[in-house]
Amino acid sequence: MARIYYNSWFTKYKKPFGAVKAGKDVTFRIQATEADIQGVKLVIRYENGMRGKEYYEMSPSKSEEGFFSFKYKMNQGAGLYFYYFVVKEHSNGGTFRMYYGSQNGHGGEGRFYGDENTIIPFSITCYEQAETPPDWYRESIFYQIFPDRFNNHLHEENTLGVNVLNPKANIFIYGQTTDEPFYVKGEDGGIARWDFYGGTLQGIIDKIPYLKEELGVTAIYLNPIFEARSNHRYDTSDYFNIDPMLGNERTFRKLVNKLHENDMHIILDGVFSHVGKNSYYFNADGSYGSDIGASKNQSSIYYDWFKFIHWPREYKSWWGIDDLPEIDKYNRGFQEYIYGDVDSVLAKWNSFNIDGWRLDVADELPDEFIQGIRKNLDTYPEKILIGEVWEDASRKISYDKRRDYILGHGLHSCMNYPFRDIILGVLNGQLKPADAAIQLTTLQENYPKDVFLNNFNNVGTHDTERILTMVGENKRKVNLAFGLMSMLPGVPCFYYGDEAGLTGGKDPSNRKFFPWGNEDEELMKSMKKWINIRKRENAIVIGDFVPFYSDKLLGVMRFTEKGYTMYVVNPTGVKQKIWSDELNFTSECPLSYEKIRQILDEVEIEAFDGYFLSERVGIEVVR
Amino acid sequence: MARIYYNSWFTKYKKPFGAVKAGKDVTFRIQATEADIQGVKLVIRYENGMRGKEYYEMSPSKSEEGFFSFKYKMNQGAGLYFYYFVVKEHSNGGTFRMYYGSQNGHGGEGRFYGDENTIIPFSITCYEQAETPPDWYRESIFYQIFPDRFNNHLHEENTLGVNVLNPKANIFIYGQTTDEPFYVKGEDGGIARWDFYGGTLQGIIDKIPYLKEELGVTAIYLNPIFEARSNHRYDTSDYFNIDPMLGNERTFRKLVNKLHENDMHIILDGVFSHVGKNSYYFNADGSYGSDIGASKNQSSIYYDWFKFIHWPREYKSWWGIDDLPEIDKYNRGFQEYIYGDVDSVLAKWNSFNIDGWRLDVADELPDEFIQGIRKNLDTYPEKILIGEVWEDASRKISYDKRRDYILGHGLHSCMNYPFRDIILGVLNGQLKPADAAIQLTTLQENYPKDVFLNNFNNVGTHDTERILTMVGENKRKVNLAFGLMSMLPGVPCFYYGDEAGLTGGKDPSNRKFFPWGNEDEELMKSMKKWINIRKRENAIVIGDFVPFYSDKLLGVMRFTEKGYTMYVVNPTGVKQKIWSDELNFTSECPLSYEKIRQILDEVEIEAFDGYFLSERVGIEVVR
Repeated sequence: MARIYYNSWFTKYKKPFGAVKAGKDVTFRIQATEADIQGVKLVIRYENGMRGKEYYEMSPSKSEEGFFSFKYKMNQGAGLYFYYFVVKEHSNGGTFRMYYGSQNGHGGEGRFYGDENTIIPFSITCYEQAETPPDWYRESIFYQIFPDRFNNHLHEENTLGVNVLNPKANIFIYGQTTDEPFYVKGEDGGIARWDFYGGTLQGIIDKIPYLKEELGVTAIYLNPIFEARSNHRYDTSDYFNIDPMLGNERTFRKLVNKLHENDMHIILDGVFSHVGKNSYYFNADGSYGSDIGASKNQSSIYYDWFKFIHWPREYKSWWGIDDLPEIDKYNRGFQEYIYGDVDSVLAKWNSFNIDGWRLDVADELPDEFIQGIRKNLDTYPEKILIGEVWEDASRKISYDKRRDYILGHGLHSCMNYPFRDIILGVLNGQLKPADAAIQLTTLQENYPKDVFLNNFNNVGTHDTERILTMVGENKRKVNLAFGLMSMLPGVPCFYYGDEAGLTGGKDPSNRKFFPWGNEDEELMKSMKKWINIRKRENAIVIGDFVPFYSDKLLGVMRFTEKGYTMYVVNPTGVKQKIWSDELNFTSECPLSYEKIRQILDEVEIEAFDGYFLSERVGIEVVR
Repeated sequence: MARIYYNSWFTKYKKPFGAVKAGKDVTFRIQATEADIQGVKLVIRYENGMRGKEYYEMSPSKSEEGFFSFKYKMNQGAGLYFYYFVVKEHSNGGTFRMYYGSQNGHGGEGRFYGDENTIIPFSITCYEQAETPPDWYRESIFYQIFPDRFNNHLHEENTLGVNVLNPKANIFIYGQTTDEPFYVKGEDGGIARWDFYGGTLQGIIDKIPYLKEELGVTAIYLNPIFEARSNHRYDTSDYFNIDPMLGNERTFRKLVNKLHENDMHIILDGVFSHVGKNSYYFNADGSYGSDIGASKNQSSIYYDWFKFIHWPREYKSWWGIDDLPEIDKYNRGFQEYIYGDVDSVLAKWNSFNIDGWRLDVADELPDEFIQGIRKNLDTYPEKILIGEVWEDASRKISYDKRRDYILGHGLHSCMNYPFRDIILGVLNGQLKPADAAIQLTTLQENYPKDVFLNNFNNVGTHDTERILTMVGENKRKVNLAFGLMSMLPGVPCFYYGDEAGLTGGKDPSNRKFFPWGNEDEELMKSMKKWINIRKRENAIVIGDFVPFYSDKLLGVMRFTEKGYTMYVVNPTGVKQKIWSDELNFTSECPLSYEKIRQILDEVEIEAFDGYFLSERVGIEVVR
């Protein structure tokens, strides 16, 4: 039987590596030896096309025996191209066909299939446009702030007790910032009263020195700040108003300007999939008047935004949450309202010189809608567009449609929850370093390179458990998590309070108030350290990426023409020694084996420790 | 058959009226005519005595034919004396016995019984000591304040938002004082977080001008103010500490002094039946240390205060409310702690010159315990002792024991919920004026006269629905309720906010925050008016009391030697005319029929209106 080998992660077999721009060529090379090979065919199919499967006879290599190659032009447009190989061989006097496809749907080394119908093909992402980000973006170190929980400037002015800006009717306010968050539920299980700590925009302004000088972050991502009923404000009441509990437009302008004066940037959370039940648009409780809003008036200009089953009480809502009526994003009026040129939500807030948007639940927004937003933002050179996607955005299907998020003209970047999963998997011993490297290289292959470098990385957000809690409150593991996030391609975004030792499982305990004056020193030191490394090492920001691993260790290498940086992590509870001949690379290592041996061999790494190298500054062990 | 008549409410039949001091004589006279009467016996039994029933032959009257009388000395001690009559007559050649007892357990006119075993006897309260109150007390007009809900002085200093003094850990604070009170419950149905508006003692001080000059009240009754977990503070944590959310000892001293400077008085709520689960004494959650308190340490000096079923988790608690472990009030250590001469709770707070105490759940306090408190207070001439009793305190049985609350050396006064029931019954048409008059006279007969004048009247407290809500938000009915409460014997106590238009059913909606700046003008005017009348008319404070009624109207008359005042209420929705010959008196009217006719006949009273007369100032119609 033939010996067949193909590995999409090495340019010997597929060139270029990874995603390909539409119209460009890809060269496939497959090795087929040790049998009487009659020929090899490349079978390729463009997902969105009408042409179906195409069979291309591959040419035997003249320079290297046993290799067959084919140069394919990606000329059917952006999207996914699926491919596999058919090998025809003579054996025992007959002709057999064998198939070679993907192991589990991802790239790298494939496997044999006997039956063409069962093949899982390889795939290639083909994109329309390289998503060059705004100049400032990739070098940024983000800090995510949940506005109600970060800082309340009135606390400092008045030490007698709690003081909250413009409290709404029928809410509850925490008496102490150290209180455990608590949802006040009614008998129906819904929120009966929203709970607030009372963080303010002025509170954030007051902490710019902390963010810039102490921590060193350079940009902030703010969870929603528009008027809403809840403390998270994903239930927008009025897109044109800053929530009065946070401040007003003047304070918001001051915040943006102060950040810019400090060479910092700010992006906002755009929540366009749904609004609050008691919003100006829907007005279920009539608080905006008896004649205003879709649920009060069928002639309302907002009526068509919603999908009523039986007006006014039954309507489509986000994930069935009655509180969040869903919007028909194909509605032209709504589209104009959000991203029209004039008087739109985007027009208004862009005019405050914000630096971009994070789109909430991008899965619920049609590609057309996202592209409309992007088109609006493209008129500003500095504005980034990041989408909330929880999976590999290049492969995401939502509502039966493969999504075009990152093929050009859509998102610049996605929230990179897959990286979080990999980091946590490795640190908690649930994912072998080998599998981690495979998953990392898979994502690297699938995302267009620019998008991969744009991705918005995290080890925890307002929607997940806190990192400290996820690693069993082992602070050294948190340090490794910060390190891995900082070393991996993409832009790191730290979740407020992770540096201060906040713990917490899912919502609401991941949303405690920042423990001013009681910060964890070890974690603070760790975050600062990684921020500094990230700022110092350009290779991390733009360099190529190669993961590697041994049985116990996971390594991340980043390199540019100017040099490499490297981080080897020991996620185990015992000291490990690196044996360079036990290291494996899932893709091409730019360094020679000799070099690797020289810099890594017999290096010892303590339990839950890491080994950081920078060619530029010499060896540095980072804990 | 004989015609027999007796009516304990007229001195022709029983003299003196009502309760009798121990050792004094009572003269019974019964009319028995129109038959061949052989003799009449008084049967009398002292409830607490060993002598059982005593039969006394009554003497035929020499001056008035058909009357039999007996003078009985109440010489068996204080308590209840039960009595009825046996009449022996000849008829159809035989001798028959007939019995005459009470109609329904109350006094007034009685009824025949054929069988001695089924007789419901009349009863007489015999007391040991007339409860002369402190000088200031009877003339007072009280105002009850639920401290968390009255006024927060920080609100005035800072208009930016809510501000609360020394908030505790893990509580919730209302964002606006107009918010509807709401209990935050956990899955077990218990309170998960206590809710506070943040009223303070300084807030009360700031409102002394309002209380004194605008309303005209002269004393305040404060719900508990000692350190506790809840907003109501009936779950005491530390009897020796002012709750820090309310203020401190300095502010409390200032409050008492300021009130006294303004000729006002103040009484506190003494909650001695139980403490909070997380009190210093019990310390279930260990917040006072791992070794402190009965539930943490069996050697604790507080261990014997409680009744453990299985230490430390199972224990007797007040009404089975786990949060409120019950105290063994027979425990000498606890008694010393509360009312000992030195270093006791009473010693401490009495030294702040407060003017008395209201004892929470007096039913749960043994007579011995109440008497211990009273003995302590008797060393101060100014201190009143009022008990929380919901029924006729002279007849109250709790835990199988007839209570000695008001027979001397116990309470000076009781909270008069029975009056509230009568007032509401009449105003809402559920109680006929005739029955109201009977109930009023019953209470008048049962209570020692001094206690009756001392009683602490209300038309609503923190434990009941608001008066405005109870009368269907009919403000004119509220005016009648204020009027009746002010006219009836006892000391009126207005519940904060009733003058301002607060509504609400049971706890917690009867505990809204005072609507400063949004007070109801009509109710405010009504309360002020009745306060003024009460202050002006000494007859209301100390005068004798006679209720009267017709089919639709209820009247209250008060008189002294200097004159009478009278209030006739029309609780119906239509105008009524008084016909003096249709008026009935349940007891002796001091005015002649001629006089009554002259002042009341053909007077018209509008729907939900009242007709107030004062002999001193001439006729005055009050609405």
